[in-house]
Amino acid sequence: MARVYNFSPGPSVLAESVLRKAQKELPEYQSTGMSVMEMSHRSGMYMEIYSEAVKRITDLMAIPAQYKVLFLQGGATQQFSAVPLNMLRTGRADYIDSGNFAHLAAEEAKRYGDIHIAASSREDCYTYVPDWTRTNFSAAADYLHITTNNTIYGTRYTDLPRSSAPLVADMSSNILSEPYHVHDFGVIYAGAQKNIGPAGLCILIVREDLLSDAHPLCPQLLNWRVQAKNDSMYNTPNTFGIYMAMLGFEWLKEQGGVCGIEKQNIEKAALLYDCIDASALFKGTARKDCRSRMNVTFITGSEALDDQFVKEASKNGLVNLKGHRTVGGMRASIYNAMPAEGVEKLVNFMRQFEKENT
Amino acid sequence: MARVYNFSPGPSVLAESVLRKAQKELPEYQSTGMSVMEMSHRSGMYMEIYSEAVKRITDLMAIPAQYKVLFLQGGATQQFSAVPLNMLRTGRADYIDSGNFAHLAAEEAKRYGDIHIAASSREDCYTYVPDWTRTNFSAAADYLHITTNNTIYGTRYTDLPRSSAPLVADMSSNILSEPYHVHDFGVIYAGAQKNIGPAGLCILIVREDLLSDAHPLCPQLLNWRVQAKNDSMYNTPNTFGIYMAMLGFEWLKEQGGVCGIEKQNIEKAALLYDCIDASALFKGTARKDCRSRMNVTFITGSEALDDQFVKEASKNGLVNLKGHRTVGGMRASIYNAMPAEGVEKLVNFMRQFEKENT
Repeated sequence: MARVYNFSPGPSVLAESVLRKAQKELPEYQSTGMSVMEMSHRSGMYMEIYSEAVKRITDLMAIPAQYKVLFLQGGATQQFSAVPLNMLRTGRADYIDSGNFAHLAAEEAKRYGDIHIAASSREDCYTYVPDWTRTNFSAAADYLHITTNNTIYGTRYTDLPRSSAPLVADMSSNILSEPYHVHDFGVIYAGAQKNIGPAGLCILIVREDLLSDAHPLCPQLLNWRVQAKNDSMYNTPNTFGIYMAMLGFEWLKEQGGVCGIEKQNIEKAALLYDCIDASALFKGTARKDCRSRMNVTFITGSEALDDQFVKEASKNGLVNLKGHRTVGGMRASIYNAMPAEGVEKLVNFMRQFEKENT
Repeated sequence: MARVYNFSPGPSVLAESVLRKAQKELPEYQSTGMSVMEMSHRSGMYMEIYSEAVKRITDLMAIPAQYKVLFLQGGATQQFSAVPLNMLRTGRADYIDSGNFAHLAAEEAKRYGDIHIAASSREDCYTYVPDWTRTNFSAAADYLHITTNNTIYGTRYTDLPRSSAPLVADMSSNILSEPYHVHDFGVIYAGAQKNIGPAGLCILIVREDLLSDAHPLCPQLLNWRVQAKNDSMYNTPNTFGIYMAMLGFEWLKEQGGVCGIEKQNIEKAALLYDCIDASALFKGTARKDCRSRMNVTFITGSEALDDQFVKEASKNGLVNLKGHRTVGGMRASIYNAMPAEGVEKLVNFMRQFEKENT
């Protein structure tokens, strides 16, 4: 069958040209006589791929020289443990609780230190990013942790919080979708399966002065300094995942880099939010000033109608639109690789559905 | 160019038919309209792949019902930490030090408990598997840890050690290459990149009664009980790696399963060892009674000649034959997916090289 438009929150749609290139090269990469999957991670041919992946993301995000880029395993969830294990010194850290993953990150960190929830929107079902301008950050926190985009609730920070501590950001669901100044952060991490490549990979961007002694019981593989010293290869990394990320970075460069894709993302999101706002049937669930450009959440107000929408959309090649069970309704994840045509088709379908069901 | 014969110790050769199948299905898996890499790990279509992977390895290894099969990230190295974090109760464990990875596993475990090296061949450059029949195992160890095949040194256990504690085995470099009785083990783990599939995946087979409380500081993602409860999906697993493993298991079944491939492996190894033993130039480095069927290590006695051999072999399409720096010389890794023709070509090349250089 034809490729569908896949609105999955992650793992999610990849650029078709990236998939076609990976397909072409799968059994034999260039003139090496073997698949990327068969290459020793320490071989010259593989190290070229690795270096190219590091170089491309460094260029795309304009990562300054004093930061180390690592390609790790375990997804962002592993970093929920690694962040406190590598960064707690005084033992105290501030977390802003803006969604499910922000909450899980803080809960995991509580096992290792004194974690202060500096601001939270949990009691309001995370429909907005909490107002951090009114909060008192800890006087001597080791870091401040945020989640830049909240996949489940469809919200994002439009302005970065500032405290006296290094800012640590889980950027899993909006990395590379809009420009950030890396020097505003001590650490950025992101699971790959939304805007980078296949699952099983996590990008870590860490300012080198933060690579100090980890907790004495930190597993070696979660120790950032050990991984930095070994250029992500303390053991065998997810070699094929890194190769796919490299292809994805190349594709993103062709889109005009992060600024180019941001323009597309703004247009795609506007198309969808405008449709929701003009509709008498569909309502957005996130507060307007916090709306995500990556995950657009909406409901009809009727569970039965939501179900019907998801099912009929799926029959029309618009798949994985069901919202997370904690929010209900619908969620359209429109990451970098979702073509504008997919969003246009969705919007047209929404209008038609509304006409037929009101 | 044509595919080479790749003797890499890992990541290593995959069956060409598996690569061709993965290539065919890469942009669109069956009638799903998307790549496996784009599927939500919680979708029905992906859960079928996951369940099939579990079922196939369960069949291939005849894994009894009271064992849980998990597909984790982080390779075997992550399990070097996870084993003590999940299994230490009294705080004491026995390790047999039969090679580099066995040593690293014990060193990592020492950070969490009282680790007793029950037997070691370290002082003899790991040229054999230590004689565990002469050792005193600890009276009340939580487990006994072994490495069934030593990739770097080309040795393997021909008989399993027995103590009163559950046996934990790192089987990374010979899993699925010969039959084991899973009920002889408490835990089996293996990085995928030798006999299973691409790197970035680790198989864990654990007897369910051993899934008890982990160390209070064990990161959630390394907690076996948490992962078992979530069927490897506490967070997004390496979805494409699991799919490749599933294809690899199907291929192995076509080879007659583990017994069928063992026959091939015995023949391939015999061909190579017979060539070495009949040679006046090449000498095996592992003691004969411990020889691995997966990694065949040999030298000429001259570093210059070793280098020349590796280079000329490479020009003849026989690549990655350089031995590990701690052993020197050559190593031919002849995992399940190395075709007999590759070994035959290598043996012919060795004979010709000997003729030309003596």
